Amino acid sequence: MQTRTIRTKNLFTKNKITAHTHTIDTKGNRSLNIEDVTLEEIAQEILSLYKDKKYVEIKNIFEEINPADIATVFEEFSEEQSILLFRLLPKEEAADTFVELDSETQEAMIRAFSDNELKEVIDELYLDDTVDIIEEMPATIVKRILKNTDSQTRASINTLLKYPEDSAGSIMTPEFVDLKTNTTVEDAFKRIRRTGVDKETVYTCYVTDASRHLIGVTTVKELLLHDYDDKIEELMETNVIYVNTHDDKEEAAKLFGKYNFLALPVVDMEQRLVGIITVDDAIDVIEEENTEDIHKMNAIVRNTEKPYLKIGIFETWKSRIPWLMLLMVSATFTGMIITAFESKLSALIILTSFIPMLMDTGGNSGGQASATIIRALSLDEVDFEDIFKILWKEVRVGFVCGLSLAVVNFVKVLLIDKLLLGTDGITLKVDLVISLTLVIEIIFAKAVGCSLPVFAKKLKFDPAVMASPFITTIVDAISLLVYFGLATAILHI
Amino acid sequence: MQTRTIRTKNLFTKNKITAHTHTIDTKGNRSLNIEDVTLEEIAQEILSLYKDKKYVEIKNIFEEINPADIATVFEEFSEEQSILLFRLLPKEEAADTFVELDSETQEAMIRAFSDNELKEVIDELYLDDTVDIIEEMPATIVKRILKNTDSQTRASINTLLKYPEDSAGSIMTPEFVDLKTNTTVEDAFKRIRRTGVDKETVYTCYVTDASRHLIGVTTVKELLLHDYDDKIEELMETNVIYVNTHDDKEEAAKLFGKYNFLALPVVDMEQRLVGIITVDDAIDVIEEENTEDIHKMNAIVRNTEKPYLKIGIFETWKSRIPWLMLLMVSATFTGMIITAFESKLSALIILTSFIPMLMDTGGNSGGQASATIIRALSLDEVDFEDIFKILWKEVRVGFVCGLSLAVVNFVKVLLIDKLLLGTDGITLKVDLVISLTLVIEIIFAKAVGCSLPVFAKKLKFDPAVMASPFITTIVDAISLLVYFGLATAILHI
Repeated sequence: MQTRTIRTKNLFTKNKITAHTHTIDTKGNRSLNIEDVTLEEIAQEILSLYKDKKYVEIKNIFEEINPADIATVFEEFSEEQSILLFRLLPKEEAADTFVELDSETQEAMIRAFSDNELKEVIDELYLDDTVDIIEEMPATIVKRILKNTDSQTRASINTLLKYPEDSAGSIMTPEFVDLKTNTTVEDAFKRIRRTGVDKETVYTCYVTDASRHLIGVTTVKELLLHDYDDKIEELMETNVIYVNTHDDKEEAAKLFGKYNFLALPVVDMEQRLVGIITVDDAIDVIEEENTEDIHKMNAIVRNTEKPYLKIGIFETWKSRIPWLMLLMVSATFTGMIITAFESKLSALIILTSFIPMLMDTGGNSGGQASATIIRALSLDEVDFEDIFKILWKEVRVGFVCGLSLAVVNFVKVLLIDKLLLGTDGITLKVDLVISLTLVIEIIFAKAVGCSLPVFAKKLKFDPAVMASPFITTIVDAISLLVYFGLATAILHI
Repeated sequence: MQTRTIRTKNLFTKNKITAHTHTIDTKGNRSLNIEDVTLEEIAQEILSLYKDKKYVEIKNIFEEINPADIATVFEEFSEEQSILLFRLLPKEEAADTFVELDSETQEAMIRAFSDNELKEVIDELYLDDTVDIIEEMPATIVKRILKNTDSQTRASINTLLKYPEDSAGSIMTPEFVDLKTNTTVEDAFKRIRRTGVDKETVYTCYVTDASRHLIGVTTVKELLLHDYDDKIEELMETNVIYVNTHDDKEEAAKLFGKYNFLALPVVDMEQRLVGIITVDDAIDVIEEENTEDIHKMNAIVRNTEKPYLKIGIFETWKSRIPWLMLLMVSATFTGMIITAFESKLSALIILTSFIPMLMDTGGNSGGQASATIIRALSLDEVDFEDIFKILWKEVRVGFVCGLSLAVVNFVKVLLIDKLLLGTDGITLKVDLVISLTLVIEIIFAKAVGCSLPVFAKKLKFDPAVMASPFITTIVDAISLLVYFGLATAILHI
């Protein structure tokens, strides 16, 4: 007799798990084999088992894999296969897997589900997950989902749907453990045992008064370390950190990193506890906001949360063209500056060949400063009131960076461009113009790069927009003006 | 009689908390005032209370503030003040605050502590936090810390210190709840009650065999929902997801987002359970890696984890100059290309004025593609095997982006540059050269931008380096070659 255990391990590459195969020989001795199995291979195995109608074996495989991985396996199936194979999942696993599927597969499944099947899945879902799914579905599907929930759940879903997209309310779940001040530890455990199975987390318990105002918080750890007849009010923490339903979800998520929470209470305008945010949702928000920042910093308007390969050409085009267009048209100014100095440039055409280097170095310097400040703003390391400290620091950094680059450039132009490559027209004075331009443009670039994000934040814009592409456009114009100005003054052209 | 409760609320701006002041009048009626108090103001209040020797009131204030916020308050104090005021913190709060302080303040405090005081703080710390602190301290301080711990703790610390900096082992704690298969639920709770106070988390419990091999996992929630006489082996989950001590900590942190864990077990080479990673540390790793990615993508070599304002000018210079220098020197190639086409440029100097626009647009297009792919790689959305799908998608996106920009540019050059600004030398053919260059260079930019990060990952380099600044340097050279090539062909110069 042989058994096989697939034990999901760390997924170091996409879609790969390390499977631990326990082989039990006829004498009952176990031996352990470790092999890498990709989720694609598991998907193939399941499909071939399905063709042979070996349903029990498929069930065994599903039982050994985490729902998040089952969802990845399902990506390999066609829609019809997905719907058929989904029915082989144990009830609870089915709901956990359903949450992890992409919304197109979810929609197809709901269309294929009978009302009973739909009800079974929805009943197992946590409310905030149901709401997340509903938000992506067309109206007919939403109607069917709501039809298959009891009236209380329906009311909760409708409340949750009303919160603005980026609000703390939109990511909270109304399912939490609430206790009263005079509850004993013993009764608290009874309550958790009775109601806990439907709660996303039972580890943080909230204490509310008769009108549901949040007045305290405690944890199961705290409860476990106290006597059974202790009262909640003796052990609860009364300095509760909470957010309001309409606060920004990003700010709520940041509190998890700062205070090491597992859950964060959410109150309404009257300080009544209406829900909690759990740490897994906070992590999702953090990653989502980081993706958004990185995209914005690279001139991309993010209009979808779909993974890269699922986004169509037109949708990608829509996310990239606005900034490209705007920045291209604003380059008219750099063109005008060059045109204005055209006669001087044609008198000394060698100056042209250093324009790309000067512009890139200026852009990179400004980009470094803006990226540093955008990230520091997002981590709350700096604020508007620090603007002078920031500016003074960046100007000094700009000076030392500019000076080091200028010295290296001065020598490089003489040795490589003039002596080695024998480029015409390079004189000591030309070299001086280029090197001096570097110092001045880098100081400007650092100053512009560090201050624009701070001002953007102050004016309630997203600082991430003030990153490299935008900064480069401004720094280009400044650099060219400095360059031609110095050329005129030093070379008398 | 008046009481005052400072209730920390959402910190929307740095160092600001919303304080809820409950005023109780002589008749015992409560009224609630909400006011914004900055942590700086609280620091000032504490200092003035300290001058008046009102120590009890200071203690009251400290009790109402979360340790993470107390640490921020301490930033306002001088070293001497910090040391004196630290002694007013309740013992447990003191350790929690100590962890949150920056390493310079920690060092100064340890120097000022008596052996007894040091022991008290260290005893309250979780082992992984102690190790984090030790890693930042000079050797003499490390010796003192180790001298003041018992031999078992010292051995654990020494083991943890040996793990490589970026490994899962370096962020794990050896303090976890472990159970045996034949333990009952009741005994499990007893064990948690007895030993739980020293564990960073008690909510995930690990099941090990006699030789400490990890064989199962269960949660307090699961325990709470089972009968007291159920055996652990009946309720434990045997498909455990775990990492190895030497696995990358970033990969370990990613598993939290994927599987919604509160803790992740870490095993050694023989599959023996040696520690766990908790979700709060995973969040720290995620944020740290995101900061590192954003910095790398902007040509910054991150050499410290200090917050922005604490990093000196020289240190900042060191982090920024390497890439600036390298990219500046590699711009020699663009200079050479321009020099090679010098005679053609001087024949038609108008071509020069479009160089900045062409280069910026190429750089921005490539930057968009590389940023998207770098992020997708880091979220495991794409992998090396997707290279052709990615390339084919980006080439098509490049074509539609290039075409739209070219059409707008063609019209813009005619209407604005030629008619409105009256720029000399613009002909339909010149306009055509510029617009065609846009289409071709953007296709190249997207192709280079999307493929370099994928190859970098394949070759085990960090893809984040293949971002905008690096891509721009390559795209610049390609763009100029295309531009001058088209100019030669179409304008016959």
